[in-house]
Amino acid sequence: MNNKVVLSEDAKRHFESYINLINVTLDDYLSVRGLPYQIVADACKYSVENGGKRLRPIIVLEFCKLCKGNIADAISFACALEMIHTYSLIHDDLPCMDNDIFRRGQESCHKKFGEDYALLAGDALLTYAFQIASNAGVPPAKTVRCIRALANYAGIFGMIGGQTLDIQNEGRKDLTLEELAETHRLKTGALFRAAAEIGCITGNATCQQYDAARIFAENIGIAFQIIDDVLDVIGNPEELGKEVGQDIENDKVTYVTLLGVEGAKKLAEKHTEKAIKALKTFENAELAIEGTKYLLGRTF
Amino acid sequence: MNNKVVLSEDAKRHFESYINLINVTLDDYLSVRGLPYQIVADACKYSVENGGKRLRPIIVLEFCKLCKGNIADAISFACALEMIHTYSLIHDDLPCMDNDIFRRGQESCHKKFGEDYALLAGDALLTYAFQIASNAGVPPAKTVRCIRALANYAGIFGMIGGQTLDIQNEGRKDLTLEELAETHRLKTGALFRAAAEIGCITGNATCQQYDAARIFAENIGIAFQIIDDVLDVIGNPEELGKEVGQDIENDKVTYVTLLGVEGAKKLAEKHTEKAIKALKTFENAELAIEGTKYLLGRTF
Repeated sequence: MNNKVVLSEDAKRHFESYINLINVTLDDYLSVRGLPYQIVADACKYSVENGGKRLRPIIVLEFCKLCKGNIADAISFACALEMIHTYSLIHDDLPCMDNDIFRRGQESCHKKFGEDYALLAGDALLTYAFQIASNAGVPPAKTVRCIRALANYAGIFGMIGGQTLDIQNEGRKDLTLEELAETHRLKTGALFRAAAEIGCITGNATCQQYDAARIFAENIGIAFQIIDDVLDVIGNPEELGKEVGQDIENDKVTYVTLLGVEGAKKLAEKHTEKAIKALKTFENAELAIEGTKYLLGRTF
Repeated sequence: MNNKVVLSEDAKRHFESYINLINVTLDDYLSVRGLPYQIVADACKYSVENGGKRLRPIIVLEFCKLCKGNIADAISFACALEMIHTYSLIHDDLPCMDNDIFRRGQESCHKKFGEDYALLAGDALLTYAFQIASNAGVPPAKTVRCIRALANYAGIFGMIGGQTLDIQNEGRKDLTLEELAETHRLKTGALFRAAAEIGCITGNATCQQYDAARIFAENIGIAFQIIDDVLDVIGNPEELGKEVGQDIENDKVTYVTLLGVEGAKKLAEKHTEKAIKALKTFENAELAIEGTKYLLGRTF
């Protein structure tokens, strides 16, 4: 990464322990063997284990911890959220959507398994997310609230709404900053909000903590997207693990085309500061703040 | 319908009142207006309101009632299940799957709205099903059990497993009766089982009632599929609202190719009898029995 922010050893250990827990649990859920219809299970596993950063489940666990909850209560929902994120990538890559044959440097799901099985793998992951969530082993009232958050933010009033706007925006040269922000608020931001909210639910957050988590998620969501746009212009493809210059090639309106590289960076910084300010309302938020700076410092 | 079984006025009223409640509730859930991404909401509504028989939600309500539950506790889950059924049809019709441009005599979702929006509409309905279920207004422990049933039966260990087998079976001339039955047990049967189980959960069924409901659902699922195969050979396209002869054209192994029309009818009758026997363990099952005979008497 072209990253000037270096994580402390403490922070590294902290986030690596989360990532290990998330990966081990995901692998456990996805290591189904000997099914007569094994190929779709294999396609699910392939896509989930295809090198994701696990950002959303990390946010779930971190907010649970910041609220002094037990992350064992949150891990199933964290994995469910990562499955929902992965299903959305599988379906987004399909020929009728973005038609991407690569994802994180590897063949996309439909390129490797065929379109029909990739479609079903996406459907399976979305459904499996709710199956896992319904078996999370926490009190039913909490489970229902987490499932509601997953469905609200992933559905038509959240991520799917954003994906629809994204399609509608194609080829529009007159897209405003407000319209761009609304698209990303839904397409990317909604799952960040789900992550923060589920962390709060499982951690028994106070009202004030819910508010702070929401503000964090909204701002980190925007900053994250802006940085993605910036990296598409100034990033190094080898470090990023994906091609750059795609937005310009596709003649896409982005934060960079609207604000320029420096303007976009400034806006990302503003939102990063707001996210960090929200974290400061929690005790012991040092590692979370460090992680946020690291994540959002990718270009600076 | 080419149906020798005629429903009594009582049974007609009974099932029509269910269908009305289901349709009004579905319409209520789906009548979202003024979204900036309205097209996907419209695609969802179009497909759900495209003339389905509402079999699965009727089974939910009927088993709730047979267990002396309150159907107000079951209606949200019944609608959620119908949404899951509809999403599966939208995705099944896509070019990368069955490539059907008609569904129930009308344009299929992707033909009318485009492939990208149809894909998202399917995803949205599946997600919305869990959103609705999580807001059903019944005690959380019950809600969690219903969501678990929805996800289990709709997912890779249920319907999606069956859809995968169906793809794998394509072009196989050596398909056995057992393999065909297993495919349908999952592809069609799983949602019938979900329906019966959710009816039982919302109706506070006894263990004996759960067993009877499961036996009913398993048998009605098989009988339903066999009759579909038979109607594809001897049915009247106008009465059915769809083309016939598709299975022969696609060189498909069906209950009819394996057993002949008469053999298939006999097997369907055997399963219908088992389903009705299971219903008889409930008090006041007369209308349910009549409905079952009507449904499964479509060819006889």
